[in-house]
Amino acid sequence: MDIYEEAVKLHLEYGGKLSITPKFKIKNRHDLSLAYTPGVARVCEEVRDDPERAYDLTIKKNTVAIITDGSAVLGLGNIGPLAALPVMEGKAVLFKEYADVDAIPICLDTQDVDEIVRTCEILAPAYGGINLEDISAPRCFEVERRLQSLDIPVFHDDQHGTAIVLLAALYNAIKLAGKKMKDIKIVINGAGAAGSAIMEMLLCYGYENCDIKPVKDVIMLDSKGIIHHSRPDVEKAPQKAHIASISNKENLSGTLIDAVGDADILVGVSQPNMFTTEMIQKMSTKPIIFAMSNPIPEIMPEHAKEAGAFIVGTGRSDFPNQVNNVLAFPGIFRGALDARARHITPAMKIAAAKALADYVETPTVDEVIPSPLEKKVASAISEAVQKAI
Amino acid sequence: MDIYEEAVKLHLEYGGKLSITPKFKIKNRHDLSLAYTPGVARVCEEVRDDPERAYDLTIKKNTVAIITDGSAVLGLGNIGPLAALPVMEGKAVLFKEYADVDAIPICLDTQDVDEIVRTCEILAPAYGGINLEDISAPRCFEVERRLQSLDIPVFHDDQHGTAIVLLAALYNAIKLAGKKMKDIKIVINGAGAAGSAIMEMLLCYGYENCDIKPVKDVIMLDSKGIIHHSRPDVEKAPQKAHIASISNKENLSGTLIDAVGDADILVGVSQPNMFTTEMIQKMSTKPIIFAMSNPIPEIMPEHAKEAGAFIVGTGRSDFPNQVNNVLAFPGIFRGALDARARHITPAMKIAAAKALADYVETPTVDEVIPSPLEKKVASAISEAVQKAI
Repeated sequence: MDIYEEAVKLHLEYGGKLSITPKFKIKNRHDLSLAYTPGVARVCEEVRDDPERAYDLTIKKNTVAIITDGSAVLGLGNIGPLAALPVMEGKAVLFKEYADVDAIPICLDTQDVDEIVRTCEILAPAYGGINLEDISAPRCFEVERRLQSLDIPVFHDDQHGTAIVLLAALYNAIKLAGKKMKDIKIVINGAGAAGSAIMEMLLCYGYENCDIKPVKDVIMLDSKGIIHHSRPDVEKAPQKAHIASISNKENLSGTLIDAVGDADILVGVSQPNMFTTEMIQKMSTKPIIFAMSNPIPEIMPEHAKEAGAFIVGTGRSDFPNQVNNVLAFPGIFRGALDARARHITPAMKIAAAKALADYVETPTVDEVIPSPLEKKVASAISEAVQKAI
Repeated sequence: MDIYEEAVKLHLEYGGKLSITPKFKIKNRHDLSLAYTPGVARVCEEVRDDPERAYDLTIKKNTVAIITDGSAVLGLGNIGPLAALPVMEGKAVLFKEYADVDAIPICLDTQDVDEIVRTCEILAPAYGGINLEDISAPRCFEVERRLQSLDIPVFHDDQHGTAIVLLAALYNAIKLAGKKMKDIKIVINGAGAAGSAIMEMLLCYGYENCDIKPVKDVIMLDSKGIIHHSRPDVEKAPQKAHIASISNKENLSGTLIDAVGDADILVGVSQPNMFTTEMIQKMSTKPIIFAMSNPIPEIMPEHAKEAGAFIVGTGRSDFPNQVNNVLAFPGIFRGALDARARHITPAMKIAAAKALADYVETPTVDEVIPSPLEKKVASAISEAVQKAI
């Protein structure tokens, strides 16, 4: 039985991965009158008179809604809200196991931006935060931006979770390579949610007052090649035009092989087998590769190493340097909930990345990032995030 | 410390009454790859290819959304979605404790019928059923009616839960009084969600093919008195006009004292202290009183008894014959989930009421209904409900 068959068997056995559990038992009339009527009426009145009391008296204190429209689920694409549910349940398992956050899967049967935004607004009161998940680009950018007007943190993990973990890995990787942020050139293959967030972070777009300096340059590619202003389709797509306007300072054009010359770091958030030996050989000294397509990376680590890669990271658990969002989101929301933060700010994201990088005491080429099984990472990140508020 | 202060203390201590608990722990990479990526991808594919598989593989199997807009919460009225949360949490505690149903509180920050309906439609995929809660009349009628087009059960507990438990109590009460359904006259004071549902059930409106026969007559009253066609405001309000068209066969007018003459049963779903000694004395032999305003009933049981009442029920736990919805909703949803029912039909509701009445082996004037602490009631109701599908 392979891992996929075993996963189906496990899900069948449990019938879903979550249970909603009362924190105390109803044993007698007295218990009933405290947890429910008539006693609960006073609790309601306290919240009615001071909404802030909800953080003391209700699940809002510790609960995050994981909200998806099922449009960009794992490598499976647009499989819809119901088929996305097993992933959202898995995410809720991780929230609890890593950071004791109660997380509720909410799968929306709409892919209309206005409806997604309005539904999140309507759902917000009972929750302490919203983790947007697996919403496809470019809709995810607008959804997240519009929801920043809510007074609870709204965080699209596919964008910022990935960017934070990658930045942490990158900090340690360039240190090992003896390079500095301000000197490095980075090529990002893939211009979706993760790629765009990584680029903005590395170029400090929106991070102006944070503890991070921009890299020398970022070149981004989508399925049509390098993103630059002279491509007519780029000017028609606002998100692509935005990318062209802040990246690719030399206005390069062409395909991936044209982009990688002298690059220090090559990041794949794209498709299996996109990277070749020849590309790695065209890169600068001590090339660093993050091939995060999952489960099949842009290049297998052994092939990248043979081509001269200094450090290779993937999204997979069976290779070193697994770039996995579980290293970030539980601790970030733990910190945000504990601090009753209204937003997850750029400074909080950078603080999380630094805390994650620093968690590795002695980085090596095979350990630029902690293992995703290292549950204590969450409390380190939570502390750092709270200090950055 | 009174019960109200004690309730606040308890809620503070726990910080909300629910925990979202993983059914298994992530101990190693293998566990992670089963509960989450990459293994979970196959689970998603199975659901994508056959949505029915969600009932085997996801929380949909056992999860009910408790959805409110906070417009009619307990006796507190329109306190809004956040202040309603402690009640929804309490309801979720009861769902789990009584029937092992996982229930998720969802508090909507809108009181617009179209938005409530649309939000429920958008949220529906991940859940096995929807329990509408504490939505004020007459909006609750339209919301519930429009949501019957969903392919999961949608049940407004304030209407049907109350009606089911009252019908069960009434079955045993009239048996003890030696009366028959077809001969009895019932006065219902209060024309909100509960009153309307009770009336429809007793007059078999919508229950034509179920195992129940209509009572002789029902007289309903709202805050303006007996509901009848000659009242101009009745004709202007569709729900009131509907009530006038199926109840009050003799077209009585006036106030409560004018309605109770020769009534066998007087039901209060209204306000404290509405019933008087004089009213009970005007009723038929062996008058039966259900005074369900909570926490202060329409008349205190001892006063009703002094006035000649044969049987008195209230919503309170400190008097005999507590008419409490917890006797119905956990078992009804347990049955609906286990049978994967698409709707909760009139036949299922009547079956639930009969099972609840039959649960009391030897009814007495002080026990026409089981104690709300009798958790085994849920499995009896679940069985009956499943047989009625």
